[in-house]
Amino acid sequence: MSAQSADPRTRQLHLNLFVYPGGHHEAAWRHSVSPDPDRLLDIRFYQDLARAAELAAFDGVFFADGPALADNVRYASRFRLEPFTWLSAVAAATERIGLIATASTTYTEPYNLARLFASLDHLSGGRAGWNIVTTGAPQAARNFGLDAHPVHAERYERARDFLEAVGKLWDSWEDGALVADRRSGLFADTDRIHTVDHEGPLLKVRGPLNIPRSPQGRPVYVQAGSSEDGRAFAARYAEAVFTAHQTLRSGQEFYADIKQRAARLGRDPGKLLVLPGISPFIASTESEARRLHQEFNELTQPEYSLELLHRLLGVRLTQGELDGPVPRELIETGGERGNGSRFQLVLDIVEREQPTVRELLHRLAGARGHRVIAGTPEQVAGQLQQWYEQGAADGFNVMPPWLPGGFDVFAAQVVPILRERGLFRSEYEGGTLREHYGLARPLSRYEAARSAAAPVA
Amino acid sequence: MSAQSADPRTRQLHLNLFVYPGGHHEAAWRHSVSPDPDRLLDIRFYQDLARAAELAAFDGVFFADGPALADNVRYASRFRLEPFTWLSAVAAATERIGLIATASTTYTEPYNLARLFASLDHLSGGRAGWNIVTTGAPQAARNFGLDAHPVHAERYERARDFLEAVGKLWDSWEDGALVADRRSGLFADTDRIHTVDHEGPLLKVRGPLNIPRSPQGRPVYVQAGSSEDGRAFAARYAEAVFTAHQTLRSGQEFYADIKQRAARLGRDPGKLLVLPGISPFIASTESEARRLHQEFNELTQPEYSLELLHRLLGVRLTQGELDGPVPRELIETGGERGNGSRFQLVLDIVEREQPTVRELLHRLAGARGHRVIAGTPEQVAGQLQQWYEQGAADGFNVMPPWLPGGFDVFAAQVVPILRERGLFRSEYEGGTLREHYGLARPLSRYEAARSAAAPVA
Ligand SMILES: Cc1cc2nc3c(=O)[nH]c(=O)nc-3n(C[C@H](O)[C@H](O)[C@H](O)COP(=O)(O)O)c2cc1C
Ligand SMILES: Cc1cc2nc3c(=O)[nH]c(=O)nc-3n(C[C@H](O)[C@H](O)[C@H](O)COP(=O)(O)O)c2cc1C
Repeated sequence: MSAQSADPRTRQLHLNLFVYPGGHHEAAWRHSVSPDPDRLLDIRFYQDLARAAELAAFDGVFFADGPALADNVRYASRFRLEPFTWLSAVAAATERIGLIATASTTYTEPYNLARLFASLDHLSGGRAGWNIVTTGAPQAARNFGLDAHPVHAERYERARDFLEAVGKLWDSWEDGALVADRRSGLFADTDRIHTVDHEGPLLKVRGPLNIPRSPQGRPVYVQAGSSEDGRAFAARYAEAVFTAHQTLRSGQEFYADIKQRAARLGRDPGKLLVLPGISPFIASTESEARRLHQEFNELTQPEYSLELLHRLLGVRLTQGELDGPVPRELIETGGERGNGSRFQLVLDIVEREQPTVRELLHRLAGARGHRVIAGTPEQVAGQLQQWYEQGAADGFNVMPPWLPGGFDVFAAQVVPILRERGLFRSEYEGGTLREHYGLARPLSRYEAARSAAAPVA
Repeated sequence: MSAQSADPRTRQLHLNLFVYPGGHHEAAWRHSVSPDPDRLLDIRFYQDLARAAELAAFDGVFFADGPALADNVRYASRFRLEPFTWLSAVAAATERIGLIATASTTYTEPYNLARLFASLDHLSGGRAGWNIVTTGAPQAARNFGLDAHPVHAERYERARDFLEAVGKLWDSWEDGALVADRRSGLFADTDRIHTVDHEGPLLKVRGPLNIPRSPQGRPVYVQAGSSEDGRAFAARYAEAVFTAHQTLRSGQEFYADIKQRAARLGRDPGKLLVLPGISPFIASTESEARRLHQEFNELTQPEYSLELLHRLLGVRLTQGELDGPVPRELIETGGERGNGSRFQLVLDIVEREQPTVRELLHRLAGARGHRVIAGTPEQVAGQLQQWYEQGAADGFNVMPPWLPGGFDVFAAQVVPILRERGLFRSEYEGGTLREHYGLARPLSRYEAARSAAAPVA
């Protein structure tokens, strides 16, 4: 199959731990399996989690982000941990695991962001990844003096411009430009440090960056938008794609589409990993796992979930409508929304399952639209294997319903099965995120241009 | 003396370690006392330094910053470590020492900066300080799409607006707004979380912040500009002021001026610490210390120092002029420059000492205009004591000529003398930077307003 260029005998799946304060299920913080809530702001809690994921040889830990407070923080653990500070402290407590920070191209400056990632990559010894987002939450705009969130197409236009700008900044120091020759007094070879003079449609950035080239050259590019613009962007830039799918079919379609788009741009589709989210309730029997899931769902609060639905779909429903069918107008109001592809995903659930509003809210409570499964370790491993082998995934973004326990049970019971089946590493082979993902380290474009121009010796 | 309101029996001096990659002397990296240059990008090097400073019970470590690359990086270790990432990793390796990050009000967004500091304060357990700068380096502008660096007055106007905005963001969550009551399902009490709706002359920020109030409420405000605008700003906002003085007289004048300005604004002058920089060469005899200083100076490169002079003064001199007097036109071209107060300081040296250009460059090589002294541990301790007791300092920003050794000798030989004389703590009493500096923790303005409005029970 052309979409999977990697040798099937050595191909391995990739696993990230998607960290969310309080766990991914919106009511997890209320359940007794969760730790005391004041651990949610304790860095050691996250350091311990990352160490546990590193012990399981996970590729990376991933932090979502958005520069605004969710309105429904009244009902669930929905504040934000700033990813750069948090992951830098996590880096200090770990050695091998990748560190993927979400950052917005809409609400940051290229020079500042380039510095943050170069520094994170340096201090972690080459473990930085960037989940590139354009920011879904429209209320972010007013935190930055804007009256309105730029529309979807504009956000992606800036995202492309931004990627070109920061790409040049990260290339601005060639490898080896820091010479530090005590005798001659040459500290940095400025012939190998380049102003970048980026002038794009929206952004002007002169450069060079003020720090030498980092271990990975630049962070691994991760992308998480699945709209048409998002897919085009991913096909061009992304080295890994995070995505949400409820059904194998939908996952396969997305997988084939993204890989084909990359191939059409002349890229090796094997160098663009597709990583759907999966939120697993695990217990020794399937019915026990389902009961656990049900317990979590019973702790949800409709005020919260209706607000989430409003955010995902732009529609406000009332508590009086909870036990009726999902109203038709929900399905008919498409259009320009923050969260294009997540909208489609919810519509698909409605059409496929004809749920009541309450049932739909429970479907979304687990992981905001990501796939939730409940089963035995074998069943969960089997699901991952199926998606992996049937062209829907190169690995997964594991989204434990609660933390840390929901991760611990996955690491202790599912990971060993994946290993027995030859699907997942027992230990790290490389030291950088790029190596875990099987990606080559890029050469600075300026160095490449210089060596191409040099005469053959 | 009204300017020193603290009880003289308990008043203690404060010491920060000002960390500069490669040490403060511009040629330190070339000297054999310095470690291998590839340690300069190794986070463990800085973690070890901070641990050493913590062992000496220093108040804080301080990182300078600027969003541009210095042109003269060809000749000295003048790249930048991004302070938030770097200090977060340092936080993870330490427990008590304060962590002071420089950040620009000209080239960052209030919402993003407020998040970074709140997070650093959370993950360090209340150790964050902010060295508030408007950015001296004019070449920063073009890294942010601007054709020119905003002029001095404009930068300070934005700085004031910025402080008002981030102050409100840091207050936007009252203490205790994160309730996390599992039974009722109330995660955050949104009645105690406030939109801030800041609309200043230049900045609009809605809020609230997306993270609960941090251990110190907000970072300790440090300021480091000594121009007229800078002093006015410091008197209003700063809790500590970093400053550069070559003579006791100049230090005393500045000290008295800043304290009086604060008092005139109704502030307690004891809550605004004045911390001049000091770069000490220490050896067991004075002549040995001078010889060491001389060795460092002999490793300087005129290309570098002339560039620094250009940056500080806006004047370009040539190597041919090195052994002549400082030209008159240097002294006459004042005006609108990035570095107003540093300009004055250099002029003072010229007028006082009538140095050749080379001698002037050597004076600046040690610490870019900060005071360099060479002597025995007793002499160095004596100098600090004199400035401290004679109204020029509440403590010092220690700027070791080289690292880590230049710090180690200070900690091992000068600090014990200061302790014997009752001038410096032997161990920490508090856990936060605010406590080390003797500052109270501020209450959220919104909480203060609410409790003032509440009826007496
Ligand atoms: C696994 C996953 C994680 C995401 N994390 C974030 C995030 O942290 N912040 C954010 O603004 N958007 C996040 N998104 C959403 C998108 O990246 C995005 O910028 C926006 O919703 C537009 O997406 P679209 O291209 O699907 O319309 C995430 C999406 C997925 C699938
Ligand atoms: C100890 C010390 C440290 C400083 N660190 C910085 C710094 O890291 N970044 C910066 O832009 N300016 C730094 N400055 C300079 C000023 O803060 C400043 O923003 C600018 O030079 C204008 O200062 P002025 O008010 O003295 O004219 C520092 C000054 C001193 C005394």
